[in-house]
Amino acid sequence: AALPARAEGPVIKWRLASSFPKSLDTIYGGGETLAKRVAELTDGRFEIRVFAGGELVPAFGVLDAVQQGTVECGHTASYYYYGKNKALALETTLPFGLNTRQLTAWVLADEGMRLLRELFAEYNIINFPGGSTGAQMGGWYRREIHSLEDLKGLKIRIPGFGAEIFSRLGAVPQSLPGGEIYPALERGTIDAAEWTVPYDDEKLGFHKVAKYYYYPGWWETGTHLVFYVNKDRWAELPPSYQAAFEVAARDAHLSMLALYDAKNPSALQRLIAEGAEFRRFPDDVLLKAYEAAHAFYAEESARNPAFKQLYESMMSFQERADLWWGVSELPMANLRQALRRKR
Amino acid sequence: AALPARAEGPVIKWRLASSFPKSLDTIYGGGETLAKRVAELTDGRFEIRVFAGGELVPAFGVLDAVQQGTVECGHTASYYYYGKNKALALETTLPFGLNTRQLTAWVLADEGMRLLRELFAEYNIINFPGGSTGAQMGGWYRREIHSLEDLKGLKIRIPGFGAEIFSRLGAVPQSLPGGEIYPALERGTIDAAEWTVPYDDEKLGFHKVAKYYYYPGWWETGTHLVFYVNKDRWAELPPSYQAAFEVAARDAHLSMLALYDAKNPSALQRLIAEGAEFRRFPDDVLLKAYEAAHAFYAEESARNPAFKQLYESMMSFQERADLWWGVSELPMANLRQALRRKR
Repeated sequence: AALPARAEGPVIKWRLASSFPKSLDTIYGGGETLAKRVAELTDGRFEIRVFAGGELVPAFGVLDAVQQGTVECGHTASYYYYGKNKALALETTLPFGLNTRQLTAWVLADEGMRLLRELFAEYNIINFPGGSTGAQMGGWYRREIHSLEDLKGLKIRIPGFGAEIFSRLGAVPQSLPGGEIYPALERGTIDAAEWTVPYDDEKLGFHKVAKYYYYPGWWETGTHLVFYVNKDRWAELPPSYQAAFEVAARDAHLSMLALYDAKNPSALQRLIAEGAEFRRFPDDVLLKAYEAAHAFYAEESARNPAFKQLYESMMSFQERADLWWGVSELPMANLRQALRRKR
Repeated sequence: AALPARAEGPVIKWRLASSFPKSLDTIYGGGETLAKRVAELTDGRFEIRVFAGGELVPAFGVLDAVQQGTVECGHTASYYYYGKNKALALETTLPFGLNTRQLTAWVLADEGMRLLRELFAEYNIINFPGGSTGAQMGGWYRREIHSLEDLKGLKIRIPGFGAEIFSRLGAVPQSLPGGEIYPALERGTIDAAEWTVPYDDEKLGFHKVAKYYYYPGWWETGTHLVFYVNKDRWAELPPSYQAAFEVAARDAHLSMLALYDAKNPSALQRLIAEGAEFRRFPDDVLLKAYEAAHAFYAEESARNPAFKQLYESMMSFQERADLWWGVSELPMANLRQALRRKR
């Protein structure tokens, strides 16, 4: 027979503002996993209600809402706040940067968390990794990209660092909310659009109007989501409730990647069956994008000390981590692809 | 000001038998992470004391001890119990099988957990993923392996499935506990030995007596550790303590991989500085090993329904997952290696 449930702790009710719509169940589900686990860990006495993007505050207003205490916590992607300080975007991903496992290792087991918490303290926020999509795709194109020349004048829906780099390659980046992308692509108002990974891209139906699906998605090499908590509200929690939030966030981080890794493969098969055609970006595009990215990082580092500090720490970690990757995961993965082709 | 700590739950004290020595701090630390988190989540009222391999029960006696209730829980690797049922080894890793992220996805977000829990129920055990090393190395060799011919008669310390496959390639696998490997390698009693990953291999000093360090470690493509809990003891826990154990185990799983990913790169650099030489296994060795592995899986599947069920589920998942890997993580990782060489 089970022992009796333990006695009561304080009842605490928080609201979590998500940047995501419920339709994107895996990414939105990160907030729900957090809330469910926190409730289980506290016999339901620490209750976190999850609100989809736009319900309480605008989808891209989560940082402001948490900073100002409009809500106690949020679930978002830090690169949405690129306009405040480009250093914030490094919490999410960096073009040609760390892959998901490396980014998680840099945050949890190297100096990433300490440096990021110093940055977020300026916003009265404490941050926790809040899930990952893994490496993303390079988006949907109405026509094939054969060389750098084909990027000239290309109208592509892409935000943040990716837009900065595409612009330096001669493309014309567009900023469009999720719901406006499909009609613009269908009408030909734009030539291409990037979103995330097959499981989510499939829901938005881009393959029906732009069949070329490009890889690798070099501007999102291992995208992290994040939980934000207002520091004053955090300080009011009993230690075991703080532990509940922190460990529940770890579970949400782990679980989201597992869900994407389990769902993307089947979505990929369905997209292929419906006519999507996979293409690798040409080498000259990849090389020029890499050079443009590093030129941009040098410029930003020269004018932004917060960016410089995070960027240099990540690059130093990546240099070592890629050496290890090159004799472990990578040769094994290449071998498996070769054996698969042989069958 | 902080709210008051919540009132008391029942005081519960458990013992955790680890299979690992304290000297292997990252892998042993999985048990400590679990215990620390469970204590934080329950205001110290659910206490798990961690005992190193051999302290309470033999290092490879953890399954028996948990099954019999000698201890309430354990931290181990299921392939140690290969002799009881080869299906148990599939919980840990499979030669040429899923990588770490894929294995975690299969367990947490596909049908892996359900199938594994059915298997462990036969031992009165409930299992939780308990950390990962990532892809391992292929071990240390006193002389170079130029072709399949060089494996004939090679005395190599290797356990489990790996031993089975090496034996089919003409090698002579040896079973030696960790502490006896170095002297045997130094004296030339054995020609080669595999252990795990650079951070742990370095501690055992193999590079001083066998400088060729081979990759990829095709028999451990993403090794999972595991927590075992006696099912009767589990049923006695209050729901919030069950949640505490489960979520703390998730954190231990995530944290161990992050720690290895952060520590292996520096260990690799130190090993190179001390004279270790990296070599890739020749193609004919890899191909014959792959064929031998699959012959063995077919034989084992024919005589062992539990093995067959798990194996087929993993292979079906891998088929889909590798297709996705081939247009996401893999091309990005290959690109980064190419760019690194270009600099």
